Amino acid sequence: MNERPDQSPLTSPRSERVRKVAALAGRSARRKQGRFRIEGPQSVRSLLAHRPELAREVFLTARAADDHPELVDLARSAGAPVRTVEEKILRALVRDAAATGASGEGDADTPRSADPSGALVSPQGVVAVGALPAEDPAAAGAALGALPSGGAVTVVVLHEVRDPGNVGTLIRTADAAGADLMLLTRTSADPYSPKAVRAAAGSLFHLPVITGAEIEDLLAQLAATSLTAAATSGYAASELFTVELPARIAWILGNEAHGLDEATLAAAPLTVRIPLAGQAESLNVHTAATVCLFETLRRRQAGA
Amino acid sequence: MNERPDQSPLTSPRSERVRKVAALAGRSARRKQGRFRIEGPQSVRSLLAHRPELAREVFLTARAADDHPELVDLARSAGAPVRTVEEKILRALVRDAAATGASGEGDADTPRSADPSGALVSPQGVVAVGALPAEDPAAAGAALGALPSGGAVTVVVLHEVRDPGNVGTLIRTADAAGADLMLLTRTSADPYSPKAVRAAAGSLFHLPVITGAEIEDLLAQLAATSLTAAATSGYAASELFTVELPARIAWILGNEAHGLDEATLAAAPLTVRIPLAGQAESLNVHTAATVCLFETLRRRQAGA
Repeated sequence: MNERPDQSPLTSPRSERVRKVAALAGRSARRKQGRFRIEGPQSVRSLLAHRPELAREVFLTARAADDHPELVDLARSAGAPVRTVEEKILRALVRDAAATGASGEGDADTPRSADPSGALVSPQGVVAVGALPAEDPAAAGAALGALPSGGAVTVVVLHEVRDPGNVGTLIRTADAAGADLMLLTRTSADPYSPKAVRAAAGSLFHLPVITGAEIEDLLAQLAATSLTAAATSGYAASELFTVELPARIAWILGNEAHGLDEATLAAAPLTVRIPLAGQAESLNVHTAATVCLFETLRRRQAGA
Repeated sequence: MNERPDQSPLTSPRSERVRKVAALAGRSARRKQGRFRIEGPQSVRSLLAHRPELAREVFLTARAADDHPELVDLARSAGAPVRTVEEKILRALVRDAAATGASGEGDADTPRSADPSGALVSPQGVVAVGALPAEDPAAAGAALGALPSGGAVTVVVLHEVRDPGNVGTLIRTADAAGADLMLLTRTSADPYSPKAVRAAAGSLFHLPVITGAEIEDLLAQLAATSLTAAATSGYAASELFTVELPARIAWILGNEAHGLDEATLAAAPLTVRIPLAGQAESLNVHTAATVCLFETLRRRQAGA
């Protein structure tokens, strides 16, 4: 009944409060609690610096607090309570789905081990809990409407990208390439799963990331804007490096295994082929996105 | 004492022959047996088509043999025995390290689950065993010497890239971008681990991939060629998109967490900065490699 966070010290890895944070590996627990988990100093720093209004609670070991005094200051400015906890508590906070009964939800993380992005997956003494942004069917349209009305704009749409690690890495790469907005359709992995948050390396808090859209609605909304929806296809007549790229562009990226469905491809006014020089049959979705997004950035910087 | 492969039918998932293939998830088992494992129709097809001399044995389910008759033909042409096995045998062949006692070797795969590359990690009814190419300290120098003496050449060097999935994905991307040669230093992950082979999606057999080099030797060998060793650095004065790129280039890629060491960076005649437009602090090694390799390909195609 008490809406204020519990201020009592956290001493048991098996306590209810610890279990609730650990359970955030599962999508249904995130929705039920309206919370998500952020791990490691880089991501937590980014949350506190760029989206302080989302921060709800920060857990640190004494050593991490010594190593990263700026996190404590940022948390204070954000009005988020800071808890100093023992290493064993911190580990328990990030126990994965298998250990917390959240398995079978479809988006539970893979066991923690070597991370595909190569990042350390130990929380390095820092875990935060954030408020999960509400899913709003009108949000994608509103975000498109809020883009600057002139000049270059890059939007990235993820449709049926199923792996949370891919979703996070795509957010990181889109950020690095200067994308203005990310839109995820309902069938993509949740960017607020711990694995996606880790792979995004803070970029989740750098640009607007909107979830839950329907692809048909998005395509209709894009068609009503000055943005050109673009997709890659091995069968496209135009090649990425020689085609004229519109300065206002929305790249639509598809599923890891089978790419974009025919209807979505057909609805994109621009399709381009990424040149493959060797004998590789295809690129994975992240590699293709990287090539397209950095070519877009190159053209933008060249003023082309 | 019999050097010919055992021709008796494989019926028990617990048999010694099955265990030996499963054990190939571990590096020491690969070295001891002189073998490595290839999974899935795409990778096995690439092995049989491009490096038939490495093929030792192919296992398929009856269904996979029906679905991929070309694999049976290719295996025959390669002189590799084909075994039709039940699904349960096939699964046992790809049981991972934890189940086969190969853990603790440092390069054992992570438990099989969603693959970072998004590819299916089920062997899809097809597993092959190949001969592990011998590590030869002179191989890198010989491979550099065997490159065409004129025209554009792209070499990729991986130094301390520790994650087998990253190594495999980098091989796939280098292949797609038309790289002529990959050289891996001794401290990089083994490209013959099952996870790396899966992530390479067949590209391991498309271009020469040489392992076991020492970085000091490589840098000295490169300096003696007409190739320019190039590295990325956030502190470099030149930007990738505007710098003049030599047509004969060797991109040196470093560790996932800390990049290239100072000595290696200092020894590279060319260092470039990848422009970051957003607020992302850095790119992961695969993203950085993709940007560099496809910009190299773009220049090559533009005849620049």
